[in-house]
Amino acid sequence: MEKIKLVQARLRRRKLDAVLIGQPDNRLYLSGFNAPDYTINESSGFLLIPRAGQPFLLTDSRYTLQARQEAAGFKIRTYKGGLLPLLNKLLPRLAVKRLAFESHYILYSQVLRLTKLCRKHHIELQGCENFIERLRVVKSQREIELIRQSVLLNEAVFQEILPTLRPHDTEIETAMRLENAMRAHGAERPSFETIVAAGPNGAKPHATPGQQQLGEGLPIIIDMGLILNNYCSDMTRSVILGTPKTRTVEIFRLVRKAQLTGIKALRAGVSGREVDKAARSVISQAGFGDNFGHSLGHGVGIAVHEEPRLSPGSRKKLAADMVVTVEPGIYIEGWGGVRLENMALVTDSGCEIFNQDRTFLDI
Amino acid sequence: MEKIKLVQARLRRRKLDAVLIGQPDNRLYLSGFNAPDYTINESSGFLLIPRAGQPFLLTDSRYTLQARQEAAGFKIRTYKGGLLPLLNKLLPRLAVKRLAFESHYILYSQVLRLTKLCRKHHIELQGCENFIERLRVVKSQREIELIRQSVLLNEAVFQEILPTLRPHDTEIETAMRLENAMRAHGAERPSFETIVAAGPNGAKPHATPGQQQLGEGLPIIIDMGLILNNYCSDMTRSVILGTPKTRTVEIFRLVRKAQLTGIKALRAGVSGREVDKAARSVISQAGFGDNFGHSLGHGVGIAVHEEPRLSPGSRKKLAADMVVTVEPGIYIEGWGGVRLENMALVTDSGCEIFNQDRTFLDI
Repeated sequence: MEKIKLVQARLRRRKLDAVLIGQPDNRLYLSGFNAPDYTINESSGFLLIPRAGQPFLLTDSRYTLQARQEAAGFKIRTYKGGLLPLLNKLLPRLAVKRLAFESHYILYSQVLRLTKLCRKHHIELQGCENFIERLRVVKSQREIELIRQSVLLNEAVFQEILPTLRPHDTEIETAMRLENAMRAHGAERPSFETIVAAGPNGAKPHATPGQQQLGEGLPIIIDMGLILNNYCSDMTRSVILGTPKTRTVEIFRLVRKAQLTGIKALRAGVSGREVDKAARSVISQAGFGDNFGHSLGHGVGIAVHEEPRLSPGSRKKLAADMVVTVEPGIYIEGWGGVRLENMALVTDSGCEIFNQDRTFLDI
Repeated sequence: MEKIKLVQARLRRRKLDAVLIGQPDNRLYLSGFNAPDYTINESSGFLLIPRAGQPFLLTDSRYTLQARQEAAGFKIRTYKGGLLPLLNKLLPRLAVKRLAFESHYILYSQVLRLTKLCRKHHIELQGCENFIERLRVVKSQREIELIRQSVLLNEAVFQEILPTLRPHDTEIETAMRLENAMRAHGAERPSFETIVAAGPNGAKPHATPGQQQLGEGLPIIIDMGLILNNYCSDMTRSVILGTPKTRTVEIFRLVRKAQLTGIKALRAGVSGREVDKAARSVISQAGFGDNFGHSLGHGVGIAVHEEPRLSPGSRKKLAADMVVTVEPGIYIEGWGGVRLENMALVTDSGCEIFNQDRTFLDI
């Protein structure tokens, strides 16, 4: 309930009576309730946190029992026919006059309905961006430990499967073997759909694994992550079966140099764009600027993609105990791609790389 | 481009100049572009369909190549720094004066930004619910065939794994074996996370598989589906290892009776609530009304949950060539649950059950 108290203090400071939380990662972070949302318009529940007293978890009958088991300290309320009829009763009972909602993670149509309901009860609605994300971005020591375990397990899976890869294996078979090994080792699930992109498919940074064989001599991008105790890992390796061609080695070294330059620039007090720029300039100066289209990195925690961003647009200063990926890549249509991704803990003096795996240095 | 023409005709009828599509299933339905959205605020792209001429697919560099390969007939445009700067150029160039957007699947914060941009260019914004969903709800003959193949493959997977289940197997192992078999047989992926809920866990309609063993004598709910050629299947079986207890058999028969009653009520021209009511009353009359908390069924197609709904609130009349699940269940805290789910094609004279599997009649 430590986190709930922080939220309630923040509500009081901003003269708000309650906040409604529907973003699934925020919901899990605050309550421990771990049900998935199939899509944003099939929510498995909402938190209603008043400025004082016990918080509520509002869900439907599919999840009532799970909510009771997982969300310690919450009052569980089950709605039939959607959230709004329940709020219609609950908000006046709690004497809510100013209600905050997550304006960055709520459907436009839902806000229209909520506005109508609040008008009826003379409740003022206040959109808040990042009310909870702000808490999540700096990790606690316990969270850092959980993320570390997630990274190490992810690496163990990769190292188990890597020696078994053969040129005639397909991308999808390889992805399956990795995901099966994740679960066999105790992961809850992959943190995203495993990417295995061989040869020319590697030119698509977010390729879907298919019937393409891994082949020899060309880089195979393997981007994988898992969820362990609710915390994500995210790692990319580019591996080559057989003897790499000279061009492959050159591009590989360039991407690795960009990564190391980014890591060197990473520390509390610098902005995300500065770190991105440090790594990007290595690739640009070698003439591959147009072949590195995505940003350098992103935060990782309960969500596999979260704040902060290491991108050309992110002006915010990084702080100690944030966790980010550092993942430059070069993608060439018709040839393929190379991406290298590690996860780092930002510290006051620099950063600490969680990854122990050095597979990508073999070249 | 048949579907695009339907959309354009609709735009002209409603005096709209273009529609912006971000809902991933709608995007796939219209364009063939199959990239996933990790979450609603990490879109992999948008369609911009003008009232005449070639439609656009707007995406970022991670997906440009995939878009070119998959979205035949679309002009692919890559944005940097998000959708809005690109729209800022594109909308005036296309002389858009009235722009429709998906009000039911767009974030509130995005609408705020879009409103600002449109005001600048004197563009009128019009929220539309179900602009594309309306097309998707009635299936073409080709779609019906694809759904049938998806259902049959899903059943084949279930029948392959069922005889191998042992009482000491855990829920999660079982779920993994089912999902692996799906992929081994050529499915793209599960259409949702496979549910295997043994004994008391079966009381949670959407339980997450864990370390619980399957056990003997009590029902095990297996709710599984896969995606094959972009189309979903969804099926639930409740199976028992060893000899079922008398109470189990009674509840089983009751759920099956409710399902058959629902199936009998299902036909073009009746409303979703009428079908729901027919099945629900069987369970209510036996005194288990409070133990069947969810609705009777939902549409299935590109999305595993889509229109129409068979629920107490759905007044809309069903039409021929809609595809729905029929899935009553009884859930008893501390004991477990039984759910039986088949998929049906609505016809003018009744319905056709896609499922061939009769496993649940073995009892």
